[in-house]
Amino acid sequence: MPELFTLVPPDEARARLFEHLPVNVQTETIPTPEALGRVTAAASRSPMSLPAFPRSTVDGYAVRAADTLGASESLPAYLTVAGEVPMGRAATVKVDLGQTALVHTGGMIPPGADAVVMVERTQKLDDQDIEVLRPVAVGENVIHVGEDIREGDEILPAGHLLRPQDLGGLLAVGLTEIQVARRPRVALITTGDEVIPPSQPLGPGQVRDINTFTLSGLIREAGGEPWPLGIIPDRFEALKAAAARGLAEADVVVMSAGSSVSVRDMTAGVISELGQPGVLIHGISLRPGKPTVLAVCEDKPVFGLPGNPVSAMVVFGLLVTPTLWRWQGRTDLPQPRAVKARLARNVATVAGREDRVQVRLEQRDDGLWADPVFGKSNLIFTLVKADGMIRVPLDKTGLSAGEWVEVQLY
Amino acid sequence: MPELFTLVPPDEARARLFEHLPVNVQTETIPTPEALGRVTAAASRSPMSLPAFPRSTVDGYAVRAADTLGASESLPAYLTVAGEVPMGRAATVKVDLGQTALVHTGGMIPPGADAVVMVERTQKLDDQDIEVLRPVAVGENVIHVGEDIREGDEILPAGHLLRPQDLGGLLAVGLTEIQVARRPRVALITTGDEVIPPSQPLGPGQVRDINTFTLSGLIREAGGEPWPLGIIPDRFEALKAAAARGLAEADVVVMSAGSSVSVRDMTAGVISELGQPGVLIHGISLRPGKPTVLAVCEDKPVFGLPGNPVSAMVVFGLLVTPTLWRWQGRTDLPQPRAVKARLARNVATVAGREDRVQVRLEQRDDGLWADPVFGKSNLIFTLVKADGMIRVPLDKTGLSAGEWVEVQLY
Repeated sequence: MPELFTLVPPDEARARLFEHLPVNVQTETIPTPEALGRVTAAASRSPMSLPAFPRSTVDGYAVRAADTLGASESLPAYLTVAGEVPMGRAATVKVDLGQTALVHTGGMIPPGADAVVMVERTQKLDDQDIEVLRPVAVGENVIHVGEDIREGDEILPAGHLLRPQDLGGLLAVGLTEIQVARRPRVALITTGDEVIPPSQPLGPGQVRDINTFTLSGLIREAGGEPWPLGIIPDRFEALKAAAARGLAEADVVVMSAGSSVSVRDMTAGVISELGQPGVLIHGISLRPGKPTVLAVCEDKPVFGLPGNPVSAMVVFGLLVTPTLWRWQGRTDLPQPRAVKARLARNVATVAGREDRVQVRLEQRDDGLWADPVFGKSNLIFTLVKADGMIRVPLDKTGLSAGEWVEVQLY
Repeated sequence: MPELFTLVPPDEARARLFEHLPVNVQTETIPTPEALGRVTAAASRSPMSLPAFPRSTVDGYAVRAADTLGASESLPAYLTVAGEVPMGRAATVKVDLGQTALVHTGGMIPPGADAVVMVERTQKLDDQDIEVLRPVAVGENVIHVGEDIREGDEILPAGHLLRPQDLGGLLAVGLTEIQVARRPRVALITTGDEVIPPSQPLGPGQVRDINTFTLSGLIREAGGEPWPLGIIPDRFEALKAAAARGLAEADVVVMSAGSSVSVRDMTAGVISELGQPGVLIHGISLRPGKPTVLAVCEDKPVFGLPGNPVSAMVVFGLLVTPTLWRWQGRTDLPQPRAVKARLARNVATVAGREDRVQVRLEQRDDGLWADPVFGKSNLIFTLVKADGMIRVPLDKTGLSAGEWVEVQLY
């Protein structure tokens, strides 16, 4: 029973999946302070100009700039202090010709004034009068109404991942709620007669479930909510029932199939009965990660990942993570964290297949080096020991020691 | 009342703070599946060898390698199938001279066998016999006991930020609980008579609280738990009471003081009365972010950040974030996400001061460019519009258009 895969390169596989997958962002409105890491579902516009009043950027004296013309240490301008602007209230004092008012950083520029002289550039004569030792230009040390943002201006576009400063900008103009994409619920199905929960003692021939937990972590990192459906035995009907439940109640289904061909074929069989159009790709030209199934069933993506924990994580990062962001309507797809390093040893690969190689970073006197992690590519501890991974493209048969590589950091 | 700052460069300020701040990691034991993003508090060692039994990496036939010596398509080796190894159970079949057993990927290598021939390299003759078409070496297609990790080997060191694959490695060997650093509780105090909660209508001269929310986001991103104590009026006793409560009940205190000199001085005064040794640094040579107070009171760090939202975020990233990771005992301090780009316009700065300039990234035909965001450095929307920031070192008076810069991404 030889495998008959028509292997598709990873980038093409992702493109083909997206072709068949409608983007139909589901939204919810949540309090802005809780929206960190969520994706905006609509562009937001400012309901007001910020600042709403002209503010001073310094501690000093609000003046008419013309009154300070030519002022210097030897020939200061003399001004009468008409009052003080209190913080957090309207300026009641008015600055007339020859007058000034004490103003604090962030305080309102009083009517009549058009600039602020820093306190360091003044000299107090008595309770009523000051000397101004340098001239100021109109608008100096003043933030004008709308200088931060104007009423009606766009604050953020749709499809934007919300960062701490974005919450600040929204709240600054009083937008205490925001419409964001709902988090995708991701059904996680693990199969394998040999797989047991990590809390159980290991019998002969058994291994503990890893994928439920590694993939739950990756789902969270991509804005989703993991919904583990447990370890399903290697029986067609049991697997189909679990997958059908996942498809009905979740937004995305991720199955990590057993590793043997018969179990993988069973997974593909189950997926092909789930809904239309069904299996799009069966096998990608990637190592690790070849035995991957990509499907769309009733407008929902269904992934049959390899059971091997390393393959499952690599394929998840290349195909599921972008799908989850796209589901949330994110348009500024994240660049992975990456550093440049020199390869410490030769890496041999096979042309026509994209390879991902786990590396550990080493800071040497002459710079950063990436040292491939020894061991078969399907051992979880190669990933634990790795700081990142490098990519050997389809058209190469390897990379040479000393070559510069880009390391995608974990 | 000119300011009398003795300004300290940011790196030196951080070093001086750390000198006075003991690292005393507080630990808790939590379920491993919930430990994503937490910091390990102790090194962990594997209680078992993984795999616990020799496993096949392919679907095929377990053999004695010697039996396949010289096998080829024209002169195959003939072997008798003694049975099949079931998944998830011990192999009961034994492989003697001239015998073989069917084995699935991940299945146990039966006693007697020392290698596996891939199914594609065999030909079935009848229910009992197969032809082997290629020789295998001893150990081929087999993962040996302990090849992933050996009993007693270190899994992870202390001070390591837990990633999805780390949870997988721990659970694979049955470590369902892990000792991690407790999350630091960070008291957040905002002051300013002009500051109101974002949900309230804005009166004349008032501004909405931003820092509570931007800094809460940064605290979460650094593994901490924000504990906002509200907006405190600009009165010494009220501020002192809030700070004392924060110091007593939290692990770290962050105050974002009003922007005026008098309020900043009050904050410094409050901090200096909180405990020993008190204020270490008053003013750093950084723009934005000069009016920063760093203190250690009763072995806890206390930060007086500038009230301006941009300054507060920049200083938080440079000084508070590393402090929160250090508090958790993290040793692999994170490199910020960064890209290289060319500067689109000249940036002028002042020597003797480190500048952080907000930039927007632009992908042009000839590569990536960093375009400084226009606007005064203290406007929140300069941060909202920015993709990252660049650093102009202390000893420079600016950067020229076309120069390569490193952009720290948000």
